[in-house]
Amino acid sequence: MFDFEITARDARARAGVFSTPHGNLLTPIFAPVGTQATVKTLTPSQLSELGASLVLSNTYHLYLRPGDDLVAELGGLHRFMRWPHPMLTDSGGFQVFSLAKTRQVDDEGVTFKSHIDGSSHRFTPERSIRIQENLGADIIMAFDECSDPNDHEYSKTAMLRTHRWAERCIKAKRRADQVLFGIVQGGIDPDLRTDSAQFISSLNTIGIAIGGLSVGETKDEMHKMLDVVCPILPESKPRYLMGVGTPEDLIDGVARGIDIFDCVLPTRLARHHAAFSPEGRLNLMNASFARDERPIDAYCDCYTCRTFTRAYIRHLIVAKELLAGTLLSIHNLRALIRLMNEIRTAVTDGSFHDKRSKMLLQWDNNAVRTG
Amino acid sequence: MFDFEITARDARARAGVFSTPHGNLLTPIFAPVGTQATVKTLTPSQLSELGASLVLSNTYHLYLRPGDDLVAELGGLHRFMRWPHPMLTDSGGFQVFSLAKTRQVDDEGVTFKSHIDGSSHRFTPERSIRIQENLGADIIMAFDECSDPNDHEYSKTAMLRTHRWAERCIKAKRRADQVLFGIVQGGIDPDLRTDSAQFISSLNTIGIAIGGLSVGETKDEMHKMLDVVCPILPESKPRYLMGVGTPEDLIDGVARGIDIFDCVLPTRLARHHAAFSPEGRLNLMNASFARDERPIDAYCDCYTCRTFTRAYIRHLIVAKELLAGTLLSIHNLRALIRLMNEIRTAVTDGSFHDKRSKMLLQWDNNAVRTG
Repeated sequence: MFDFEITARDARARAGVFSTPHGNLLTPIFAPVGTQATVKTLTPSQLSELGASLVLSNTYHLYLRPGDDLVAELGGLHRFMRWPHPMLTDSGGFQVFSLAKTRQVDDEGVTFKSHIDGSSHRFTPERSIRIQENLGADIIMAFDECSDPNDHEYSKTAMLRTHRWAERCIKAKRRADQVLFGIVQGGIDPDLRTDSAQFISSLNTIGIAIGGLSVGETKDEMHKMLDVVCPILPESKPRYLMGVGTPEDLIDGVARGIDIFDCVLPTRLARHHAAFSPEGRLNLMNASFARDERPIDAYCDCYTCRTFTRAYIRHLIVAKELLAGTLLSIHNLRALIRLMNEIRTAVTDGSFHDKRSKMLLQWDNNAVRTG
Repeated sequence: MFDFEITARDARARAGVFSTPHGNLLTPIFAPVGTQATVKTLTPSQLSELGASLVLSNTYHLYLRPGDDLVAELGGLHRFMRWPHPMLTDSGGFQVFSLAKTRQVDDEGVTFKSHIDGSSHRFTPERSIRIQENLGADIIMAFDECSDPNDHEYSKTAMLRTHRWAERCIKAKRRADQVLFGIVQGGIDPDLRTDSAQFISSLNTIGIAIGGLSVGETKDEMHKMLDVVCPILPESKPRYLMGVGTPEDLIDGVARGIDIFDCVLPTRLARHHAAFSPEGRLNLMNASFARDERPIDAYCDCYTCRTFTRAYIRHLIVAKELLAGTLLSIHNLRALIRLMNEIRTAVTDGSFHDKRSKMLLQWDNNAVRTG
């Protein structure tokens, strides 16, 4: 039910097909983030039209609101948000450590206060899996502890706990129509990352995620960690780099052997009036666009670029019209999905290694990290 | 270029075809409002899909932002907002009197302060027409003065000024690809309304609008005014009841001989979590919908009702997701357009008079006025 077949290689880059109960994913792939069971401002129909296939949703958020029991009662996440294609949920770990008001970690799990109303909650590996089974995404994640990359001692403690929790998640998992990914942690220490990659690879999971990157370390540090981790991971398992990234990150990540990416960047930038473009990241609120009759990107095939001028989008932003966010989200998501399609084609025809620096050159104006 | 042909009658109700340079309008018709060159939260593609044909936009708002000169420079409103179907602009009169911070009326025109930044501006009948020619809608409105319906003296003064301004608008108008509608005023006084209907009918305009209703008077008072005005208006001209209405208003208006309606109600209700339904106006934020797997309206053919449950829409509202507003706007607009299609069919096959009370019964739960 969850076969992963590598169909082409280009140096360390891979193209493949990952089959799930809700359809095949052509890898490498970029997944839009639908935090609260909606990719912000977009209908599923708009998402399909822009070529999205895998959508990520957040366990922490859905557990708090509307509640995973309610989602299960209403037939699961696919049915609830009417997304008929593959879905992925994270474990809640990252949000508990980054978003919740206070948290108390022990070896059993984490007690935290909701960022919404301050109410007290507890996640354990078993609870995270149970919630993710209620949500019913095709791909689910082991419960992990994400550390400050610059705190070596804590990175080690968190990594070891992540390993023990991964084993408990595997034991806790029941549904056959879901696959669990273990998560490699270890901060920015090559030795810890090596240990973690070896340990997580030794587990019986269908896929492997790399967590704890793009959380404050430098781009060089992230690349070094990928260079340490990826060669250790079994070739046969899909590899998911969590919460990454920019256009540049996708190019660099695929080059290092990553198959799956997700990031809130395209929709978050849209809310801040920014668009990916070959000229660099544009802030469409800028007065220089007031009379600009060009689309955001003349080469883009998205609905926004096929239809509207920069001048119109700027007007919507200045007039505080919500349609601006919708149009920019459509473009930014399509830009990354289109880039990923180009990358996949290049990997498949063996030209990725040659085209990579040209692609990076084309996209490096857009590469500002947003952590 | 602007023929109006009445194709069927049922008592005082009429069905017709009003041709414009951007396509034929099948009347009676309901026009969604796109105040700032966008029907809030919806793409033109979503608007087309829900069956909208005529869209109204506001001269006052577009004059202030982004400026009518800029819209003209970018090819006019149709091109600017990418709405290829017929459009209508109001004259700015209503907003100047209801929205601007301060205003000073004289026989020449109105000086007012922008509600956005307090800057000073002046509209005259000639200026309103020039702005509307810059915007380039198919149907444009004479500059009028909208009075407090309960102030008889002011209603008379404003009506007389509206008449003089209508004549000046006719003189000022230059573009052959636009039609001008005169506006009947007169508050809630039958004599004033009679005078105004006679005067405006005597002018050489293609269509006639009825203004100054749904601005604080009772429903009975509005009906009385329509009963006074409509029989005076020439049969051959399309009649537009401005800023109205609720589902009930559409039924009552068509029954009195109105052909064109517009109202912000469907999109405004959407922003306040409310939906038209056969059960009455629903507030989808209500906890009772948390587990409700039904669509808003099982008989509705809109994208929202074909796709989503009330439970999901409630979740979006509670989670403050903007998609809620989009989905409710789609439904509410489609509900009125569908109702209008039903009315038109009934008028055409001669059953409207019989069906009217049943239609009213079906919709009177939704009839709360928002004036």
